[in-house]
Amino acid sequence: MKCFIDYQQDTPFPIQNIPYGVFSTKENPIHRIGVAIGEWILDLNEIAHLFSGPELHNRQYIFKETTLNSFMALGPKAWKEARERIQTLLSDNCPTLKNDQSLLERALVRQANATLHLPAHIGDYTDFYASIHHATNVGTMFRGKDNALPPNWKHLPIGYHGRASSVVITGTPIKRPCGQSIPSDGADPVFGPSKLLDFELEVAFFVGGAPTKLGEPINISNAHEHIFGFVLMNDWSARDIQKWEYVPLGPFTAKNFGTTISPWIVTTLALQPFLTDNFQQNPQPLPYLRHTDKFNYDIQLEVALCPKASIPTTICRSNYKYLYWTSKQQLTHHTVTGCNVNPGDLMASGTISGEVPESYGSLLELSWKGSKPLKLNDGTERKFLQDGDTLTITGFCQGNGYRIGFGICEGTILPSY
Amino acid sequence: MKCFIDYQQDTPFPIQNIPYGVFSTKENPIHRIGVAIGEWILDLNEIAHLFSGPELHNRQYIFKETTLNSFMALGPKAWKEARERIQTLLSDNCPTLKNDQSLLERALVRQANATLHLPAHIGDYTDFYASIHHATNVGTMFRGKDNALPPNWKHLPIGYHGRASSVVITGTPIKRPCGQSIPSDGADPVFGPSKLLDFELEVAFFVGGAPTKLGEPINISNAHEHIFGFVLMNDWSARDIQKWEYVPLGPFTAKNFGTTISPWIVTTLALQPFLTDNFQQNPQPLPYLRHTDKFNYDIQLEVALCPKASIPTTICRSNYKYLYWTSKQQLTHHTVTGCNVNPGDLMASGTISGEVPESYGSLLELSWKGSKPLKLNDGTERKFLQDGDTLTITGFCQGNGYRIGFGICEGTILPSY
Repeated sequence: MKCFIDYQQDTPFPIQNIPYGVFSTKENPIHRIGVAIGEWILDLNEIAHLFSGPELHNRQYIFKETTLNSFMALGPKAWKEARERIQTLLSDNCPTLKNDQSLLERALVRQANATLHLPAHIGDYTDFYASIHHATNVGTMFRGKDNALPPNWKHLPIGYHGRASSVVITGTPIKRPCGQSIPSDGADPVFGPSKLLDFELEVAFFVGGAPTKLGEPINISNAHEHIFGFVLMNDWSARDIQKWEYVPLGPFTAKNFGTTISPWIVTTLALQPFLTDNFQQNPQPLPYLRHTDKFNYDIQLEVALCPKASIPTTICRSNYKYLYWTSKQQLTHHTVTGCNVNPGDLMASGTISGEVPESYGSLLELSWKGSKPLKLNDGTERKFLQDGDTLTITGFCQGNGYRIGFGICEGTILPSY
Repeated sequence: MKCFIDYQQDTPFPIQNIPYGVFSTKENPIHRIGVAIGEWILDLNEIAHLFSGPELHNRQYIFKETTLNSFMALGPKAWKEARERIQTLLSDNCPTLKNDQSLLERALVRQANATLHLPAHIGDYTDFYASIHHATNVGTMFRGKDNALPPNWKHLPIGYHGRASSVVITGTPIKRPCGQSIPSDGADPVFGPSKLLDFELEVAFFVGGAPTKLGEPINISNAHEHIFGFVLMNDWSARDIQKWEYVPLGPFTAKNFGTTISPWIVTTLALQPFLTDNFQQNPQPLPYLRHTDKFNYDIQLEVALCPKASIPTTICRSNYKYLYWTSKQQLTHHTVTGCNVNPGDLMASGTISGEVPESYGSLLELSWKGSKPLKLNDGTERKFLQDGDTLTITGFCQGNGYRIGFGICEGTILPSY
């Protein structure tokens, strides 16, 4: 499959990727749907009329919308048809787009000239806690090694509802939050800027398929039909605020000041070559959570921290495949009591930590609760995030001669109000 | 203020109320905005052109929409102008509507002939835990009397993000959820229908005003400008599922199978005569949560349980005024770290229990964890909800010769799948 658009071999967006996003330009501020290809965006709004297959020829309007929700709602057949059509249109041996100079000029936009937006209206956002290494690390810190994992942890993918309104696109600055925390155990709370501001390396999926009905759980056997694609996520967390507030009803204001996602949704179709064995689960979960098909991915993840006006340091190398619970299990469990889901809902993995310290997906773990400061390349140290720090998450799958990249998930910490 | 439309003196919807809702009819399935008056709905879509005041004459389109979000977004000045205009148009001495028979015929719809819908698109839904009697009861049951309230309880209004997609309108049946629970402490979990299905008597407010920006908390001094009005809520809860899943990240599938609200939003303007002293807080909360103006309401609340094909029993009489944390404090705390809110967001009080057992707002408390079964009028007993049970929450404020009613918040339990 050769693309008629030139790009570097190590581009995150080769013709094998075709990730979906929503963008606008200075000349045209209307939000449009596009796919990333090399350094370019192919504006699907401009080529909607070329989707002539059985699933899409009567639904070309979905590419004229300002979010991906309607496209997500169509389900796997339409997703496959769209992907194959786009790949054909971009391929060197298809003249339709390649030889239509006037259409090409309208439909190709340089990524450098575009602003990226949230790709979907996120009706509900959920965050899981699906990495066993992360849960074990945090549990060990706060409850000791013997009680690290809560008794329910290996029986169900623990999750909690998050705040959809505060999910933002990469590049959005994050203001250091103010809130309540306790200076020491048993002390009265004080108000002020968070002193333990952290990132969390996560990967989230967007729900697809038709909206489900309340009272009708998704069966594990077809959960994959409701998983459209994946983005990188930084679930910014104020550890001091979280510690004081989270018992008994979970994290609240410690999380809802901002959650950053990368702009390009890499589809399950693009990730298929990178399927890898599911994490071995022991004990076997209850039947409603069992599946034997692979639904784990080898996605290499990196986190870089760059102090203001300084040089970046890679502080974490992790991998999506370390997750104990698959996204199929997450989604199935989410709906087991009857919760309805909608296309555009976002479900995040929770912090993805590997076994070794270099793969821990948060500063809480990397600095082991602040006891082991990280040395950065510019000679400074970090226990938690400082004002001006820029945190960048990247991710890719390494194919044979190509890479499926996720773009970046980045944010800079601004001083508190 | 005499209304030209006849209604009973004890109607929940006199001219002093004017609650907003969204309805449709068999003849016209389009969702329209209306206000309840006596047995009728006044269709604001039909009389939009009569809103000629300074706030609304250029924004009449907001009454042509299918949800109240745009109207909610306008803020207090517009809400006041709309309310006064509607009251004038309904008053006996204003000929505009009264004498326009053709318009009246189009604009007045019998409630009996209408279907009520969710009044707003709920972007995010949050549930608080603001009743001290409820929190004390639950804490006593599970942690003993001496540790009943968590250490943070009196310092901040504990809350958690809920599932917006599963909020439904009164009358929606609720299927008994299936999920994981443990048969006894330390045992492995089993899967099956919830055996401890419960209601929670709550009151929720809809957020109004322009969307706020991420990173810009709402100040307690103008939090009321973001509170549009109130509905009754039943936060259905599967106690056995909740007990097993909620540590450490809070309730999840035990709550997201359905949350019922009443259809008519009673505005803060209508509730103003029923302002009552705020609950006395000791210790005084941190300055960002302090306000001296009254923002507590004397709203009488009742819960009735009716077994299938049987007679109802009033099982709880409570009052909104028992809440420890005001809705102003709830909203302010929600945004303290910078969370943005949107018009149409829904924020619930948490179970509202009073001091005496008859005022407890859940079966968990009323039957004291199942140890004291409730005797119903039909001779049967209840520890928790049974299939076929209909649970009805009602609420009203008693004025001088009139009542401000909330309508009903009702749901029937269907057997599990």
